[in-house]
Amino acid sequence: MRSTPSHEAAPAMTPAASLVFTTLLSHGPLTRAEVGRRTGLSPAAVTKAVRPLMELGYLVEGVDEEARPAVGRPANLVWVDGGRALFIGIKVTGDEIIAVLADLCCRIRISRHVPLKGREPEAVLPAITALVQELLTEADGFGVRVRGLGIAISGDVDRADGVVRYSPFLEWRDVPLAELAGTTTGLPVTVDNDVRALTVAEHWFGAGVGLSDFALVTVGAGIGCGLVVHGRVVSGAHGVAGEIGHLSLDPLGPLCHCGNRGCVEAIAADPAILRAVRAATGKQVSDAAEALDLAHDGDPGVRAVYARAGEAIGKAIGSLVNIFGPERVIISGEGLAAYDLFAEGIRDAFAASAFGTASQCDVITRPLPFEEWARGAAATAIQSFMASDTYEE
Amino acid sequence: MRSTPSHEAAPAMTPAASLVFTTLLSHGPLTRAEVGRRTGLSPAAVTKAVRPLMELGYLVEGVDEEARPAVGRPANLVWVDGGRALFIGIKVTGDEIIAVLADLCCRIRISRHVPLKGREPEAVLPAITALVQELLTEADGFGVRVRGLGIAISGDVDRADGVVRYSPFLEWRDVPLAELAGTTTGLPVTVDNDVRALTVAEHWFGAGVGLSDFALVTVGAGIGCGLVVHGRVVSGAHGVAGEIGHLSLDPLGPLCHCGNRGCVEAIAADPAILRAVRAATGKQVSDAAEALDLAHDGDPGVRAVYARAGEAIGKAIGSLVNIFGPERVIISGEGLAAYDLFAEGIRDAFAASAFGTASQCDVITRPLPFEEWARGAAATAIQSFMASDTYEE
Repeated sequence: MRSTPSHEAAPAMTPAASLVFTTLLSHGPLTRAEVGRRTGLSPAAVTKAVRPLMELGYLVEGVDEEARPAVGRPANLVWVDGGRALFIGIKVTGDEIIAVLADLCCRIRISRHVPLKGREPEAVLPAITALVQELLTEADGFGVRVRGLGIAISGDVDRADGVVRYSPFLEWRDVPLAELAGTTTGLPVTVDNDVRALTVAEHWFGAGVGLSDFALVTVGAGIGCGLVVHGRVVSGAHGVAGEIGHLSLDPLGPLCHCGNRGCVEAIAADPAILRAVRAATGKQVSDAAEALDLAHDGDPGVRAVYARAGEAIGKAIGSLVNIFGPERVIISGEGLAAYDLFAEGIRDAFAASAFGTASQCDVITRPLPFEEWARGAAATAIQSFMASDTYEE
Repeated sequence: MRSTPSHEAAPAMTPAASLVFTTLLSHGPLTRAEVGRRTGLSPAAVTKAVRPLMELGYLVEGVDEEARPAVGRPANLVWVDGGRALFIGIKVTGDEIIAVLADLCCRIRISRHVPLKGREPEAVLPAITALVQELLTEADGFGVRVRGLGIAISGDVDRADGVVRYSPFLEWRDVPLAELAGTTTGLPVTVDNDVRALTVAEHWFGAGVGLSDFALVTVGAGIGCGLVVHGRVVSGAHGVAGEIGHLSLDPLGPLCHCGNRGCVEAIAADPAILRAVRAATGKQVSDAAEALDLAHDGDPGVRAVYARAGEAIGKAIGSLVNIFGPERVIISGEGLAAYDLFAEGIRDAFAASAFGTASQCDVITRPLPFEEWARGAAATAIQSFMASDTYEE
C-alpha cells in the first residue's frame, strides 16, 4: 500500500496495463504480438495498455539491433526502461538491515548492510530511516527519483494496511510500519512478509519466471513458504498463508512455540536443530555454524538430527505439493548451508509422501542471499507503483 | 474438454465474455454497470462481451418488473436465459450412477439414479450411455438441445485430456472416458474429478458464491478437498491437488493404502472408521450406518473412534487453512451423517492447529446429496461450453 499520496508520475494503471508491465518485466523485450499472446490481450488492448506507459517513459519500443535478421524487416520490440525510476528495498533480520537501491527492472544498483542495535521498533525505524537517507543521497547521482520503499519483515504482515501484526522474531505486535516509515522517509511505503516479498522477486526474475503455480520454501531461523497460484502470490484471506512450519507431523514430537507438538519448525528450524544437537552431544553448541561443523566432523548423533530435520522438510513439501500441486518447489534460505545433510531426508520423505503424479513436481534448491530478499522488498514497491486499483481482488 | 467437434451454437468466447457469463450465472440479474464493477471491465468491454451472447440467446436484457421503482426510470438488467440450453451431469459412485438434466443456469430439471452392476469401465460406460439416452429423450420435451455432458469421477482425473488416470475407488487406470462417452453419446464430454466438479457448483451457486478463496472438504468413503484460489478452481500442475486425505499426522498411526502411516484418510474415512470400530468392539460391523448406530447407542470405544476421526479432520483443515488462508472451509460429504460425533474433535483440533489469524477462517458444514455432485458435473459441462480458449492458462 502507499501510505503517502502517490507522486505525480505514478501511472494510472488499468488491470491490462499492470499485466503488460509485469509481463515485460519478466519476459521483455517482446514484440507487441508476443505481449498479446502471453497476456491473452487483443492487439488493441495491448496498444491501449502500452501507450500511457510509453508516454511516461517506463516502456520503450525499438529495434533490437543485435537480433536484426539477415533478410527482411526487423521486429519492433517493447521493453521496460529500467533507468527511468528507482526503488529502495529493505530486509530486516534479527541482527541487521540489508538495503538495496534497485531500478525499475529491479536490478540492484547499490546495496548496504547495517547491524541492528536492538529489535524494538524504536531501534529499527531510525536505522531504516538513516539507511534510506543514505541511499536517497546515492540515488541523486543517477538523476532519477526514488519512487517507493519496500520493507520485508518476517511474521504476520498486513500489506493492505501496512501493519506488522505479529513478528515473533522481532517481538513486534501491531506496528503501523508503512505509516511510520512513510513519515520519516517521505516515500510511498509497501510492507510485506519477507518470504512473500522474495516470492514476488522469484516470480518476476528468478526460478518462478513463466510458472503460474510454484512454492518457495525457506529454511533457516524459521521455516517459511511463499505460494504463487494462478499466477499470483497467495496472501491469505486473513493475512496468513504458506505456514508449512506449523504442519504437525508427530503428536509425540518436540513442543513448538505455537503450542502444538511435532511442528516442522519445532524439528527443522535452526533453534530446534541447536536444541536437538545439544541434547544429542551434551555440548553447549552456540550457533548453527558450530552444529554444522560437528555434523561435518561425522558425529552420528548430530547427523541424525539433520537427517530428521530433512525428513520433516521433505514431508512438509510433500503435503504442500499434495494440496496445491505446484509445477516447482524452490528450497532456499540460510539453512541451505546444511543442505548436504538434509538432502537425502528431504528427497526420501518427499517421494514417500507425494501422492500419485504429484511426485512429478520439480523440487530444486537455490541459494538466495539477503540482498535477494531486499530485492524482493524492492519488487513489492515496484508492484505497488505499477498496481492497478482494480487488479487485486 | 470437448472430445467431439464443438456444435454450431457454441459461442466463440473471449476471456472477458467467459468472465461476464459466469458472473451473471452466480450473481445475475445485474445491471451492465454492476457487471462492470464485479468483473473490473470497462463499459465498452462489457458491451463487447455481452453482445454475441445476447445474439445467441444465452443472455437476455430487460426490466425487472418486480423491482420497478416507485419513481424514476427502472434499471435494465442482464441475466442468463436458463432455458436456452440443457446439459447432463453424471456422478459415478461405487454403487450407482446419479444423473441430472440441468439447464444453462444449472438448475436441475430431472434427476435419475441407476445401480451399478460392476465397477469396471465395461460395466460403467454402457450404464452411463443408457442413462444419457434416457435423459436425451426427456430433453426432447423441452425443445432445446443438450449441449454437453459432464462426468464426475473420484481419483486422479486429467480434465484437459479427458482421461481418468487413476481411480482407486473404481480401480480404473488410464481410461479415456471423454473419448469413449463422446463416441457412445454423441455429446461433447467433460470429465473431471468429482470433488473439483462439486467445487465448481459451490463456487457458482453454493456456499462459495462471491468468495475468491475457499475450500470444500468432503468426508465419507474418502477424504476429498476442492480448492478455489484467486477465484479459480485449483487443478494441480500434474493433476493432483487438494489431497488432504494423505496429510500424515502420526508416524505411528494406522497404515494407509498409499503406503504411509497416520494419513487423515487412514483415520477418518469410512473404511478406516469401520476397521477401528471392529477392533474396538470385536463386532463384525458391516457398514457406516451400523457403526454410527453403535456410537449413537453410546458405546464409548466407538465414540472414541469418531472423536479421533474428527480430530484428524480438524487438523487437516487447520493445515489447509495455514497453507493457503481461505475465507471459508465448507465441510460436506456423506460422512456428515456422523457430524455430531465429529464436531467437537474438528473444532478443537482446528482451533489448536490454525496459526494466528488463520483461525478466523469461517468453517461451516453443508449437506450436499449426490444430485448436487451430479449438478457439479453439469456445471463443468457448462464451463467447457462457455470457456474461452485463452482463459485457462
